[in-house]
Amino acid sequence: MKKVTSFDVARLAGVSQPTVSRALRNLPGTSPETRARVLAAARELSYVVSDLGRGLSTTRTRRIAVVSEELTNPFYPELVEPLRRELARHDLRAVLVTDKDLAGVGIDVLADGSYDGVILTTTARNSTLPRDLTEREMPHVLVNRVLDIAESHSCTADNPAGARAISALLWELGHRDIGTIQGPVATSTGRERAEALRTGLKDYGIALRRELLVRGSFSHDDGFRGGIAMLERPSRPSAVVCGNDVIAMGVLSAARHLGLAVPGDLTVIGFDDIPMASWPLIDLTTVRCDLDGLARDAVRMLTWEIETPGGEPQVRRVPVELVLRSTHAPPPAN
Amino acid sequence: MKKVTSFDVARLAGVSQPTVSRALRNLPGTSPETRARVLAAARELSYVVSDLGRGLSTTRTRRIAVVSEELTNPFYPELVEPLRRELARHDLRAVLVTDKDLAGVGIDVLADGSYDGVILTTTARNSTLPRDLTEREMPHVLVNRVLDIAESHSCTADNPAGARAISALLWELGHRDIGTIQGPVATSTGRERAEALRTGLKDYGIALRRELLVRGSFSHDDGFRGGIAMLERPSRPSAVVCGNDVIAMGVLSAARHLGLAVPGDLTVIGFDDIPMASWPLIDLTTVRCDLDGLARDAVRMLTWEIETPGGEPQVRRVPVELVLRSTHAPPPAN
Repeated sequence: MKKVTSFDVARLAGVSQPTVSRALRNLPGTSPETRARVLAAARELSYVVSDLGRGLSTTRTRRIAVVSEELTNPFYPELVEPLRRELARHDLRAVLVTDKDLAGVGIDVLADGSYDGVILTTTARNSTLPRDLTEREMPHVLVNRVLDIAESHSCTADNPAGARAISALLWELGHRDIGTIQGPVATSTGRERAEALRTGLKDYGIALRRELLVRGSFSHDDGFRGGIAMLERPSRPSAVVCGNDVIAMGVLSAARHLGLAVPGDLTVIGFDDIPMASWPLIDLTTVRCDLDGLARDAVRMLTWEIETPGGEPQVRRVPVELVLRSTHAPPPAN
Repeated sequence: MKKVTSFDVARLAGVSQPTVSRALRNLPGTSPETRARVLAAARELSYVVSDLGRGLSTTRTRRIAVVSEELTNPFYPELVEPLRRELARHDLRAVLVTDKDLAGVGIDVLADGSYDGVILTTTARNSTLPRDLTEREMPHVLVNRVLDIAESHSCTADNPAGARAISALLWELGHRDIGTIQGPVATSTGRERAEALRTGLKDYGIALRRELLVRGSFSHDDGFRGGIAMLERPSRPSAVVCGNDVIAMGVLSAARHLGLAVPGDLTVIGFDDIPMASWPLIDLTTVRCDLDGLARDAVRMLTWEIETPGGEPQVRRVPVELVLRSTHAPPPAN
């Protein structure tokens, strides 16, 4: 028989899962009537409150699992280090778990009692992992990712604002043939940045042609492959907007490989502003996300959830700003 | 009163510390006479064998502390990821601890019972940390570092062979004014690579002038600063040899900042061959270290030390090879 979860109780009581969680713990924020309804539903389903989420102040490991891609993808250290620093300020230790570690074992690695909480940095839009964590009453927060259905706390960059700023810059420079290499559509970052770019360009009357939208992983090598394919077309775009800085470095590699001058022949724009983007060797025009701010918000949300479980899921958007360096220029005259 | 350690016993018995460790555990490899001498010394000093190192097969955490610099230094993920993968193949989990984490607390973080062993990747040549770990009978191994006095297992690249290959290349290309930007002299990697370059060049009759040897951390920013200082000199060198690839990227940034063409005006050589070095955008001529091989050797040594403590310290050298890409050329004609 399938184990009864707090979601089943919520469904029967006609309330949200966090409300069930709060009501069963007798936390403030639920009316007596709601509480009675939840208790009745829990009784009817013989729901047993898990002990995992309770009594944390005495059973703490002070370890937080941080789920990340392999750190050889240069974006991830830039996200993970601020999280490690911020957790340390709260006397919590980050333990890195990669997607690959999770592949075979999934939720069990995260909910085996080793961790007080989980930070997810790679979760797909429709992943069931956050819900599994909620069912096991394991405090968690998504960073740089949001879910299609906001069932967990999450914080991410203001991707639409970034895409609007890029659209305005390209319009002003005179670009009309624009290509883009974006991350996987299964990730919120991959979808949001592409969608917002399409909308942003449309506001200026520029259509993002289907054949000039390429997707791959957020890696240099996929940026390189996508860049080669796009720039070898008979009518190549005069600007390539990239899903993140690491993809943009792949496109810069492709331009160099093909003997195209940046920005004379080609404009390349990144997203994130990781420190490498500011190296004079690279000097990438990009959109800065405040990754320290993202880490601060995420750890604040997580510690709050550990102390006071069952809060209504929140989504935070961290502001972004355009950083003008040396990879943008007007399109070449032909 | 200071706690009596296995080193004190070794001194009194006139044997090495590993011999004490083996003798007290009744492991093979010590003669009956030696064992008797060790036992007598231990009795005389009232030495108590720590329980930490024993019975590991029952008390294991299956966690290994990996001590690394912050992962935002692009070299470290390339060293840490192979270690994580290799540990996972042995069903061991890597827990990252940065130098900064250790700064306040030191040995206690590593020997608090959370870990079955320790991998050190940043240790200074004269650090007391390895010795402290030995005293606490905590299995450990140094990777990419060796100690001045080889008291611990360690494995590292064949730095002298790499420096000889670089010297031969520069000689053949016709370079005679050669500068170098190296890592800290307190690290074995920083000292060995500089010393071996000096010797290698001397074999070709080229003197490494004192003012053209600069040291800093193994970082892009120190490479950049050192590069600017060296390349702004009235008589700048025609080639700069770097302590690692990350420093070399800093020198490439300096060259770009000063408007110098690489390799037309300046030859730049790295060390390590991290994946970024092969990006067409960077395309660095460098010395390849087999970091996967380094990780394999290190984890093999560590698991052996966990299973059979007290082995004689070993130093392994992993072979290297020159990788010719696009940052080297003959010196400019003047």
